[in-house]
Amino acid sequence: MHADAQGEFEIIARYFSRHSPRRDVLLGVGDDAAVLQVPADRRLVAAMDTVVEGVHFPVGTAARHIGHRALAVNLSDLAAMGAEPAWALLSLSLPRSDPHWLQGFADGFYDLAQLHNVALVGGDTVRGPLVVTVQVLGLVETDHVLKRSGARAGDVLYVSGIPGEAAAGLAVIQRHLDGGVAGEWLRQRFERPEPRIALGRALRQLASSAMDVSDGLLADLGKLCQASSCAAVLHLDRLPASPAMQALFGGGASERFALAGGDDYELLFTLAPDRAGDLKWLADCGVQCTRIGEMVQALPGVSPVRCVRAGMPVDVDAPGYDHFVG
Amino acid sequence: MHADAQGEFEIIARYFSRHSPRRDVLLGVGDDAAVLQVPADRRLVAAMDTVVEGVHFPVGTAARHIGHRALAVNLSDLAAMGAEPAWALLSLSLPRSDPHWLQGFADGFYDLAQLHNVALVGGDTVRGPLVVTVQVLGLVETDHVLKRSGARAGDVLYVSGIPGEAAAGLAVIQRHLDGGVAGEWLRQRFERPEPRIALGRALRQLASSAMDVSDGLLADLGKLCQASSCAAVLHLDRLPASPAMQALFGGGASERFALAGGDDYELLFTLAPDRAGDLKWLADCGVQCTRIGEMVQALPGVSPVRCVRAGMPVDVDAPGYDHFVG
Repeated sequence: MHADAQGEFEIIARYFSRHSPRRDVLLGVGDDAAVLQVPADRRLVAAMDTVVEGVHFPVGTAARHIGHRALAVNLSDLAAMGAEPAWALLSLSLPRSDPHWLQGFADGFYDLAQLHNVALVGGDTVRGPLVVTVQVLGLVETDHVLKRSGARAGDVLYVSGIPGEAAAGLAVIQRHLDGGVAGEWLRQRFERPEPRIALGRALRQLASSAMDVSDGLLADLGKLCQASSCAAVLHLDRLPASPAMQALFGGGASERFALAGGDDYELLFTLAPDRAGDLKWLADCGVQCTRIGEMVQALPGVSPVRCVRAGMPVDVDAPGYDHFVG
Repeated sequence: MHADAQGEFEIIARYFSRHSPRRDVLLGVGDDAAVLQVPADRRLVAAMDTVVEGVHFPVGTAARHIGHRALAVNLSDLAAMGAEPAWALLSLSLPRSDPHWLQGFADGFYDLAQLHNVALVGGDTVRGPLVVTVQVLGLVETDHVLKRSGARAGDVLYVSGIPGEAAAGLAVIQRHLDGGVAGEWLRQRFERPEPRIALGRALRQLASSAMDVSDGLLADLGKLCQASSCAAVLHLDRLPASPAMQALFGGGASERFALAGGDDYELLFTLAPDRAGDLKWLADCGVQCTRIGEMVQALPGVSPVRCVRAGMPVDVDAPGYDHFVG
């Protein structure tokens, strides 16, 4: 068998059968389906996201980053529900079987999987355009699911990390900018998103609502408002500052990246006003959280997201990413 | 918004948010992830399969058939485990948003989903080449999982339905044959595979091993032998006859379709000799099952699948489908 023409079953055996210490995997890769044990006091949380070459990452992206990204964007959905990751399935549509690419992809995938104790338990490998779909399954305590729909007028609004840096990193890559240390930082923020699992777990007894920011802060905040039947005031001058974005792109572009750039994979969440003092709980979650606004009553016929700067209303026209529009 | 440029979120709202009566869906389409209730006395069974235009179905296949197929090939994996289907997630990578196509796809998907009481609870819709990944979750009693690995020497070997008809149907389509009623029958066998859920459920207390036939009978029987550490004698003259295949392609080609054609989505299973009398249990499963061979001891250095005709050994050279070889 040629090194560049490995079969589907050899690919699975060689690259995607690493051992997992999880004892709740009763049957993993190798049969028609995986068999898993869900504890009686947990609910199952399921998400599935797809990344396509040339759409979600530039052609030529290192395989290791693609493997990391495909899992990370899914784990981010579990984080937004307050769930603990458990298992994943992987569908890999590949134009050809390239051992070097496969090794890099598997390393990127498994490094992140091991970090979060995720067992790869099944999937599919087919010939086709480069399209990667990952399905993740997580577990959450029966009475502590984080939803988008729980925000109420009066709640305070927070975001983790620095929205916009990932979009700025993609711009560094696409424009072939030589941005030095700042460029490298931003680039890495795009290439290796860190799902906020620990934050989501801490928030599940604390936040009134949560979602992950993947299509841009403004667009996703609009979805949170819609799900919660309320509106939000967003203080543009409280958006967390990024020295790297500022240095490379200046203030105006940084704000546009923060509001409309995608791929952040940060958590957007609300706290009831009497819980705002509990933020010390979040100190161990490994990510800064910034208060960027508050939830207010929705008004009929008015956009649910109202931007203000220095207390004055500002008109912002920055739609989020939508695959089929624009 | 133009009818041919619907947004990702409108696509989900319009085509993929049909109501399901399942009460174990605590949170379905619309949040970051679905939340599901697994009964304490069940194990979770998870499978994921991908279909790619031009690889798994010809370019120009009706959207309704693609929707049916994408779910059917996954349900077939659950059938092979003896599991009862419960929930599905759908990833749809689409070159464009075409309402007519989306309606047909959703109809094909939901018609089959409703037949098997499957709730669509999440997924992803992205722009890209036409690639469809479905992930299905099923439930099985804790002590009755059907595996590939349980066959023993002395067991009898069965297959459901008529292997080869789907591959013959694909040949009818690809060669633009006008095969009359026979051609239409075969074509439908390719386009609308029927997952053998009821059969799998009946087998779970009866069979010693089972798997679904998707890559060709010979290749898949080889995998069952390998998983069970034994060998099989396959009687070519006992393969179930297909009048339609026979009429259109003759005997030799029919046998090759049966042995090496893919896309059957039938069940291959073994019964301990003292259980062969129990086959009356299977009468209500809506599909004929044929005894095609028996399991024997594996011999070192000898292929695990031995074909015989009229009791005499026959050499057959018919590898199964592998995406990356050949």
